[in-house]
Amino acid sequence: MAKSRFEYVRNYELPDPLMPGTFIVVRIDGRGFHKFSDTHAFEKPNDKRALDLMDKAAKTVLDEYKDVIMAFGESDEYSFLLKRNTKLYNRRRSKISSSIVSLFTSAYVFHWLSYFPNNPLRYPPSFDSRVIVYPGEKEVRDYFAWRQADTHINNLYNTAFWALVKDGQSTTQANKTLQGTDSKDKNEILFSKYGINYNNLPEQYRKGSICVRRPTIVIDDQQQQQQIEESTTAGVSNISIDDPAVGSVEDDSASQTRINGVIRKEKKVKKVKPYEGIDGEIVVLHEDIIKDGFWKERPWLLQ
Amino acid sequence: MAKSRFEYVRNYELPDPLMPGTFIVVRIDGRGFHKFSDTHAFEKPNDKRALDLMDKAAKTVLDEYKDVIMAFGESDEYSFLLKRNTKLYNRRRSKISSSIVSLFTSAYVFHWLSYFPNNPLRYPPSFDSRVIVYPGEKEVRDYFAWRQADTHINNLYNTAFWALVKDGQSTTQANKTLQGTDSKDKNEILFSKYGINYNNLPEQYRKGSICVRRPTIVIDDQQQQQQIEESTTAGVSNISIDDPAVGSVEDDSASQTRINGVIRKEKKVKKVKPYEGIDGEIVVLHEDIIKDGFWKERPWLLQ
Amino acid sequence: MAKSRFEYVRNYELPDPLMPGTFIVVRIDGRGFHKFSDTHAFEKPNDKRALDLMDKAAKTVLDEYKDVIMAFGESDEYSFLLKRNTKLYNRRRSKISSSIVSLFTSAYVFHWLSYFPNNPLRYPPSFDSRVIVYPGEKEVRDYFAWRQADTHINNLYNTAFWALVKDGQSTTQANKTLQGTDSKDKNEILFSKYGINYNNLPEQYRKGSICVRRPTIVIDDQQQQQQIEESTTAGVSNISIDDPAVGSVEDDSASQTRINGVIRKEKKVKKVKPYEGIDGEIVVLHEDIIKDGFWKERPWLLQ
Amino acid sequence: MAKSRFEYVRNYELPDPLMPGTFIVVRIDGRGFHKFSDTHAFEKPNDKRALDLMDKAAKTVLDEYKDVIMAFGESDEYSFLLKRNTKLYNRRRSKISSSIVSLFTSAYVFHWLSYFPNNPLRYPPSFDSRVIVYPGEKEVRDYFAWRQADTHINNLYNTAFWALVKDGQSTTQANKTLQGTDSKDKNEILFSKYGINYNNLPEQYRKGSICVRRPTIVIDDQQQQQQIEESTTAGVSNISIDDPAVGSVEDDSASQTRINGVIRKEKKVKKVKPYEGIDGEIVVLHEDIIKDGFWKERPWLLQ
Repeated sequence: MAKSRFEYVRNYELPDPLMPGTFIVVRIDGRGFHKFSDTHAFEKPNDKRALDLMDKAAKTVLDEYKDVIMAFGESDEYSFLLKRNTKLYNRRRSKISSSIVSLFTSAYVFHWLSYFPNNPLRYPPSFDSRVIVYPGEKEVRDYFAWRQADTHINNLYNTAFWALVKDGQSTTQANKTLQGTDSKDKNEILFSKYGINYNNLPEQYRKGSICVRRPTIVIDDQQQQQQIEESTTAGVSNISIDDPAVGSVEDDSASQTRINGVIRKEKKVKKVKPYEGIDGEIVVLHEDIIKDGFWKERPWLLQ
Repeated sequence: MAKSRFEYVRNYELPDPLMPGTFIVVRIDGRGFHKFSDTHAFEKPNDKRALDLMDKAAKTVLDEYKDVIMAFGESDEYSFLLKRNTKLYNRRRSKISSSIVSLFTSAYVFHWLSYFPNNPLRYPPSFDSRVIVYPGEKEVRDYFAWRQADTHINNLYNTAFWALVKDGQSTTQANKTLQGTDSKDKNEILFSKYGINYNNLPEQYRKGSICVRRPTIVIDDQQQQQQIEESTTAGVSNISIDDPAVGSVEDDSASQTRINGVIRKEKKVKKVKPYEGIDGEIVVLHEDIIKDGFWKERPWLLQ
Repeated sequence: MAKSRFEYVRNYELPDPLMPGTFIVVRIDGRGFHKFSDTHAFEKPNDKRALDLMDKAAKTVLDEYKDVIMAFGESDEYSFLLKRNTKLYNRRRSKISSSIVSLFTSAYVFHWLSYFPNNPLRYPPSFDSRVIVYPGEKEVRDYFAWRQADTHINNLYNTAFWALVKDGQSTTQANKTLQGTDSKDKNEILFSKYGINYNNLPEQYRKGSICVRRPTIVIDDQQQQQQIEESTTAGVSNISIDDPAVGSVEDDSASQTRINGVIRKEKKVKKVKPYEGIDGEIVVLHEDIIKDGFWKERPWLLQ
Repeated sequence: MAKSRFEYVRNYELPDPLMPGTFIVVRIDGRGFHKFSDTHAFEKPNDKRALDLMDKAAKTVLDEYKDVIMAFGESDEYSFLLKRNTKLYNRRRSKISSSIVSLFTSAYVFHWLSYFPNNPLRYPPSFDSRVIVYPGEKEVRDYFAWRQADTHINNLYNTAFWALVKDGQSTTQANKTLQGTDSKDKNEILFSKYGINYNNLPEQYRKGSICVRRPTIVIDDQQQQQQIEESTTAGVSNISIDDPAVGSVEDDSASQTRINGVIRKEKKVKKVKPYEGIDGEIVVLHEDIIKDGFWKERPWLLQ
């Protein structure tokens, strides 16, 4: 069989490496999710089951790819941040982008029934993905700020829109009612007409979902330890734990205790840099990522 | 909410259009399928259920994307050919590549239980994808010839390898036994030691799977009609029909009859070019695509 | 000196190979040539010295790069065609594009005084370049047809425009006079008002300049020889010879004679494919490249 | 003339924008300069005329492109740094790369006779160019450090090599003599055998050439003014002035005085950021760019 006669076609597979030393973001988006959410009777404006399933699929990606150090999701989209110096697949654009969107999709379908037990999947949903490369910390933070600002804007609009629709307006009327309104107007409509205090709605809806790892740090100093515990505690205030295993931590040995992912050691040991804690548990947060706090607590994200 | 302050990050999403007037091939490959097939107890050297599931997922892609005009699969990989002048997603590389691999993956998981009813999925499988662009007909044909030659080589090797292993050799021994052998040697081992005539094995294993649409052609000439019926019949000899709907064709009206996807009309009508028959039923073939026959019967593939 | 500490920056030099088996076109364009032609008092609408200098610079490129098999120029632009399977610089986009534009520019400045002996260069002119890749013969022919059609359209306009200006109209008036006119109108203005028969103007102005090599073919058959001589003769009817060396051909040996670049041999010899005649003299033609004739006489251009 | 029929070929010109907010470096390299320098009898190991001509060509580039804020050259290569947020040609890779290499080449040929008055150019030299994109300040500084370290290593080697050759060794012998030697060894050979103190050789040879603009700053504060004058003075210690115009500065008006490119104004005026002084005179320096000093004096380079 003349295999070699055809093999020249491999030369058409051209290299597509991404620039070294930059931040790679992979964003996936649902394809045709307007129809998909209708077909599967998603609750409006937010279906907690659907959002939790998105979060579960994102966690699967972080679980598989240690170099994916953070993810942010809202509605039917999710963005994944790879660490600056990742060597994953030699930074090949297609390989990174396709592997992540494929695993995300797979997990979404795989876990569907756990989140929609009475609502079987009617047809296979799909997502697209793109790679965006950012040169520095500022652009990465602004990227996630952009997505979270978008979450807020969309959710406020949708919350008002569906309140009007459930109140009897047609979708066309509701759109018209909201045309030209600003945030304050929408808050006012929600509060005065429907008694809804927007700021009391679940943070998952208003701020989206953030997946990060809880740092696993070996501590050799009483003062440091205290600092980290505080910051970790601060950082986990809004955690939604969808896995009963999270939180139940066993002692690894008599001489060390792990609490909230922090390993205490009595004796002096070699200091371990926070980022090396890549085996930290993956948690899903719903908090502000526009201000500095989130990033200061997790300096390894922008290293 | 200062949305605009962050929106500049969108400028980092750079265009990635593929060259016009060329053939786009998207090839997807299973990630970690060695482990995946072990975990799910795939039969060796070929698991018909797994291959049929791959074919089903590929058909889902053709069903969704009319511009995907052909696919070829073997083992845990599948290649999709888009028509030369496709405008799908404005020929954006990432969008095409990611949408196809995502839908394929989704369909694979979605249909798993239909093909492995007693063998639930243990974890979500995934695939990667890449885009390869070919300038002309020759390169496209050679690409598919390359994949089909690869199918043959791998399958002959695997068939001999697993015969030896089932006969008691360790995998290391079996590898050693086959080292340096050519096709003739492997055929000889299979026949003399195990009574296996390689050429009698199922074509699905030896030639892989081809997904194409059956042409739907409006015919206005007795002679043409006959030609097409003959070629169509010839081309479907090895079809594996996994969908009971295929074959049962209803009359669309009293004045026309559809047989094997060919619509006969009594009166002269506007001639329809074969390729416009994009709604033809998708069939899965297992036949030679290295020689001319397959391509001559389907001139629209290389138009 | 810690050299190695810095060498990682080389990793930022990413590969940029062009697709194999395709036609590479490099087009260079003058930067700021409106001002440049004013400063150097180019004659309007065409300055033969300037066009000849462009042709000379293009010939320098063909002379240096055997894989550049054709060029077409008009005004301050020139397009270079590389043979389909060129391995020049491993088909690296930047290397090909930059080397050609640099050599062209260098030759333009180097030879300036030979073409403008009384008109020294006031400042260094420059060009930009881009690479365009075409998949097949049709697109290559249409590319050059596009450029030659453009030459005609621009030249007809400019000829009419400058006739009006030299007749006393301001440039604004001349533009207005020509607004909305078609080719026939412009021909009519030129003929009726100024007695200019456009079709009698020099072909260099109306059709641009084509650089190709005259084939050097070893002939072993009386009939073939005659064919080639005829086609070669036909093809050189509009040659402008700017180099006195062209045409004076010496005998290479007693046993062979070269006429018009064709080597005759008495005895049967190994047939040489036309394209291998890469050492043929470079000639500049001014003829139609939209119709088939030019291409049929030079089949190696599209091989 | 059916222009439109062919215009579709323009669609093959695909976009090639460079990532925003990154540092663009264009490096040009002489093609075949080993032969070129032999043909034109360059002095070894360094020909000051040739280096000065390179510097002159680089200055021409800075003069034409305000967004090229720095250049570094050695031997037959030169690297150009564009300011981080340049919008030059919409950051199109080919356009930037080709325009710079073309202008550089043009200036090199144009000014040749001023630097080699008795040595006319025998044939047109050429350069290639490539674009490298760096995400941050660190990488840019390391890039230039890499090139300057390279200058040192090459020059030390060449100086020793040519000393040996001029002393009678063949080039093969000289290469062998230097094989395996480190910097200290080469310094020792130069000093003990030839009385050459390497560190006393001209800085142009040892450190290469740096082109930058002298800042033109509007000053409104006595203290600031003093600081800038000091730093500017420090920074110009090794300036080689090849243009008699540099240094002779005329008063722009009675009310302001320009000294060393610094404009003093008596009254308080709107503060102007240093980088806005893009019209500062271009100077050629030969000093260390690996340490911090050079960069601290010119903060606008890395802004």
